[in-house]
Amino acid sequence: MLNKLRQYTEANRNSSLELLKKYVSYPSVATDSAATHQCAEFLVSVMEDAGIPTTLFETAGNPIVYGEILSENENAPTILFYGHYDVQPPEPLEEWISPPFEAELREGRLYGRGAGDNKGQHLAHIIAVKAYREIIGQLPVHVKFIMEGDEEFGSEYLTPFVQEHKELLQADFVYISDGPLHESGVPLIVLGNRGVMNFAIEVETATTDHHSGNRGGVIPNAAWELVRLLQTMSDGRGKITIDGFYDDVLKATDLEEELIANIPYDTQELAEVYGVKEIPFDKHEFYERICFQPTLSINALGSGDARLVKNTIPAKAIAKFDIRLVANQDPDHVFSCIENHIKNQDIKGNVLVYKEGEDMLPSKTDARLPICFKVIDAVKEAFGGKEPIVLPVIGGSLPNAVWTDILKIPAISVPYANPDENNHAPNENIQVECFLQGIITTATVLYALGGKK
Amino acid sequence: MLNKLRQYTEANRNSSLELLKKYVSYPSVATDSAATHQCAEFLVSVMEDAGIPTTLFETAGNPIVYGEILSENENAPTILFYGHYDVQPPEPLEEWISPPFEAELREGRLYGRGAGDNKGQHLAHIIAVKAYREIIGQLPVHVKFIMEGDEEFGSEYLTPFVQEHKELLQADFVYISDGPLHESGVPLIVLGNRGVMNFAIEVETATTDHHSGNRGGVIPNAAWELVRLLQTMSDGRGKITIDGFYDDVLKATDLEEELIANIPYDTQELAEVYGVKEIPFDKHEFYERICFQPTLSINALGSGDARLVKNTIPAKAIAKFDIRLVANQDPDHVFSCIENHIKNQDIKGNVLVYKEGEDMLPSKTDARLPICFKVIDAVKEAFGGKEPIVLPVIGGSLPNAVWTDILKIPAISVPYANPDENNHAPNENIQVECFLQGIITTATVLYALGGKK
Repeated sequence: MLNKLRQYTEANRNSSLELLKKYVSYPSVATDSAATHQCAEFLVSVMEDAGIPTTLFETAGNPIVYGEILSENENAPTILFYGHYDVQPPEPLEEWISPPFEAELREGRLYGRGAGDNKGQHLAHIIAVKAYREIIGQLPVHVKFIMEGDEEFGSEYLTPFVQEHKELLQADFVYISDGPLHESGVPLIVLGNRGVMNFAIEVETATTDHHSGNRGGVIPNAAWELVRLLQTMSDGRGKITIDGFYDDVLKATDLEEELIANIPYDTQELAEVYGVKEIPFDKHEFYERICFQPTLSINALGSGDARLVKNTIPAKAIAKFDIRLVANQDPDHVFSCIENHIKNQDIKGNVLVYKEGEDMLPSKTDARLPICFKVIDAVKEAFGGKEPIVLPVIGGSLPNAVWTDILKIPAISVPYANPDENNHAPNENIQVECFLQGIITTATVLYALGGKK
Repeated sequence: MLNKLRQYTEANRNSSLELLKKYVSYPSVATDSAATHQCAEFLVSVMEDAGIPTTLFETAGNPIVYGEILSENENAPTILFYGHYDVQPPEPLEEWISPPFEAELREGRLYGRGAGDNKGQHLAHIIAVKAYREIIGQLPVHVKFIMEGDEEFGSEYLTPFVQEHKELLQADFVYISDGPLHESGVPLIVLGNRGVMNFAIEVETATTDHHSGNRGGVIPNAAWELVRLLQTMSDGRGKITIDGFYDDVLKATDLEEELIANIPYDTQELAEVYGVKEIPFDKHEFYERICFQPTLSINALGSGDARLVKNTIPAKAIAKFDIRLVANQDPDHVFSCIENHIKNQDIKGNVLVYKEGEDMLPSKTDARLPICFKVIDAVKEAFGGKEPIVLPVIGGSLPNAVWTDILKIPAISVPYANPDENNHAPNENIQVECFLQGIITTATVLYALGGKK
């Protein structure tokens, strides 16, 4: 089957690339309602052409495109493909070698905004379904597609849509291709991500700034009070000292530990890439900190005006934070722990603590589920036997809790793009080989899920 | 003698006020070289008219005006009057009721920039010398005057001038009238001030900011590292925990303690004025902290951008500080203690510590000196028996170390202005009664120094 698939993909190389070029030509930045609508309508036509009956759902934001094609085998499992047709804003335009919305083929890559993130990747899913039906015929699984148009601005309208369409979207698991392969070029499979919660603390010690000479020693200093408070919250190196903060944090499973043990790890290389003096962790601790530990990052500190030399006792100080939450942590519980902690500290003046923005929940799929093994094996086969790296959790945040916590199904990410895809940057691109391999990988997964070898 | 003096002052009230109005009309902001020169020349003429032979010295900044008139009694003590003829910039102009450089008499006050700070106060010195000679004749003391034109911008040119003219300026003590009486209207005598030293600490943990999700937990955070460092330096409430910082700090003398015990003290009133919840110190501790303890104030904190919600691990963080130094502390020693302290802390990344601006040394005159008692008694007499408040040290910083540490003579401040003089603010003014009382106080001091009663 793999051979036929490779032949088909090669034979249709030009038409696949032409389709992607056309798709990239829609400047579907989420804030441009007209462009996203046109892009969504084009996507509907592409899916219909691939034989997938498709509907455009209006939302309070940009449309959600949904399509499904069922297997004749009623008892077949269901795969739900998720992708997003909106793209990052292309600015700064002057740094693009070719215009962002006129895709250009150069040196084996297709350049254009959205080529890798995410049009090229979910188009590979669609083409794979078409290819499968043309080569083999009957689909071995029920296939559903959901594509949204607001991902780059936080997927605000995805959650209510999923909540309202649980039955429509019901599936055995969701399959997502976004982001790049592992830096080594080895295929990557990701089973979870951390959540994120933003909050701020403001300390106000007086109604106005004071002269640091006349009043120095007898007036509380908001910056010092903030420092006093902060140092009660964390050692600043990963250990958070807030009662209850770790209440719901789970230990890594044995299998997760095993998966991590298989990841290549070179601290010197990492230190260079990150621009830091050293990475003082062994592989176990490094991934423990990324995958299984929450963080409390100070994003910003502000008090007085650090550009000036000004002899004042500042009356106000502010710190902004994000917390990366790990699976099973509840942002409301964590925030109430922070509020309680602050109440119990000896801080002069008024302390205000408040959340900012919307929380994004953590999400994790249990690596021990049979579906995970099936996908891992299929990806390995599609990559000619290359053992995939399986990351139980990535450090960043994605809206995948809509699948694992609302639909309550596993979510498995299998990114297809090259590591230098320049997503969110000028000269975004996808290597043609990555795009075509994405078609092959998708079809191989479909085949494997059907239980046929 | 006091009666004659009061009569003379009253009789010459109008001419004294006209002289002050004319003096205020010179817009002698230190940055305006032409205006300060014209003002300095006018000052020379005023002093000459008062019978004081006077010279204008050019400096690298604005001129220094020096005059002296010796007593026929060669063994008489010498008093050196210090003042400054430059003024604060008048902006914002729209908030002035009458133009800042067209002095206007309203409701018993003369309004205009420099009326209180400092033209009205040192003009009182000059008029007092003239009055003394006209009423009594022979001066009982040698009298010297030094007036500078760069005080509001840090007295940069005063130190080298004093260093180069030690013999010319030699005196038994320097007498300064600047700032206001005590808020209660009681006369105030100040014997010292704290010094000031500015410095900054920068922490750099990586070559660039990082994504707080992807890297959160494995990359040092500059803001957290700064917090870690800061909390090793002080408890943030006045106790500095840097080895050697307090090496040269002196205990208050018994007399200083006694002087402080005589100061009226109302914590509720202070808390209201300062706009803070409470002043949690008894009088002893309050003045101990203002007069005899150095401070380490954070003036500003900066890391990331506190106006945004941005999920980054900042690579840089900065804190700016001023230290108020007390008598006998050496800024170089203190700074080297800070450098050593920082070297010994466990901080990730590069830590840069550097001084900013010029240090101003602390200055203190021993209250036990006989000259202090003489001045205190004379001021009390001039104020009709009102016991002056004697502050051993004020919390702010003044360039008085030029007198106590270069000339090595006592420096005694006897401010003449009303507490609401609005110096450094729009509608600066001096109460006519304060101005005239300044003449009387000055002449009474001269009289007392001569040993005559």
